[in-house]
Amino acid sequence: MSAMLLGIDHVGLAVRDLDAAADRYLRALGMTAGHRETVEAQGVEAVFLDTGDPSSSVELLAPLRPDSAVGRFLESRGEGLHHVAYRVDDIAAALEALRAEGIPLVDEQPREGSRGTLIAFAHPRGFAGTLVELVQHPEASR
Amino acid sequence: MSAMLLGIDHVGLAVRDLDAAADRYLRALGMTAGHRETVEAQGVEAVFLDTGDPSSSVELLAPLRPDSAVGRFLESRGEGLHHVAYRVDDIAAALEALRAEGIPLVDEQPREGSRGTLIAFAHPRGFAGTLVELVQHPEASR
Repeated sequence: MSAMLLGIDHVGLAVRDLDAAADRYLRALGMTAGHRETVEAQGVEAVFLDTGDPSSSVELLAPLRPDSAVGRFLESRGEGLHHVAYRVDDIAAALEALRAEGIPLVDEQPREGSRGTLIAFAHPRGFAGTLVELVQHPEASR
Repeated sequence: MSAMLLGIDHVGLAVRDLDAAADRYLRALGMTAGHRETVEAQGVEAVFLDTGDPSSSVELLAPLRPDSAVGRFLESRGEGLHHVAYRVDDIAAALEALRAEGIPLVDEQPREGSRGTLIAFAHPRGFAGTLVELVQHPEASR
């Protein structure tokens, strides 16, 4: 059984100042702020912005510590685009498909994301330099 | 009259080999190839990939020449995420809103994009390091 791709779930943007960046997107583009959370284990604070399309959002990511993954990203690359997340209906099958194509995975198994999702990251080497996340929403399980 | 934000139109990814990258997205993620075009004036070849959600696609960009904008991007940053494009219903009003917030613009006026769209780019300085494109589709005019 193969997984079905359901579109772009969100784009992740690495920023230094979460509030300043969110304010900019809200004021200049008319986005609205949604779910916000601190993930101590990942060393990151994140806020999701509503883009006017409920299925595709912007995730702003700011590091809690310089030695976190996002902190190191900012150090080496500066602020900007961090990853693209695609929504799938069956993340286990989708990971299997990546493996079958020889894509190197960051997460060999799905893990818990925010808002009840299951997520997994594939290495940028697998997708011409782009860090790719897969997301399965709770309502997508079948 | 203010512009309405309608979601993420596409994400633009800069790659060196358009066919190899497209093949990877098609085979590993089950995307399908859509509109493809060469824009001599911009020195770029682009292909749009369908992500399973008709409103949000992936645009792969490869340079025709090293001294093009995408060629210089690859030289300095390497392959990867290039821009995020947001769909708006009224691009003139949306540009006015960016100006009112002091966002530096690459395009002061909307210009013709592919597939009958109007587009304009805002400078990454205005959005915490992310190159932002606005897109108005023909059917969105009011």
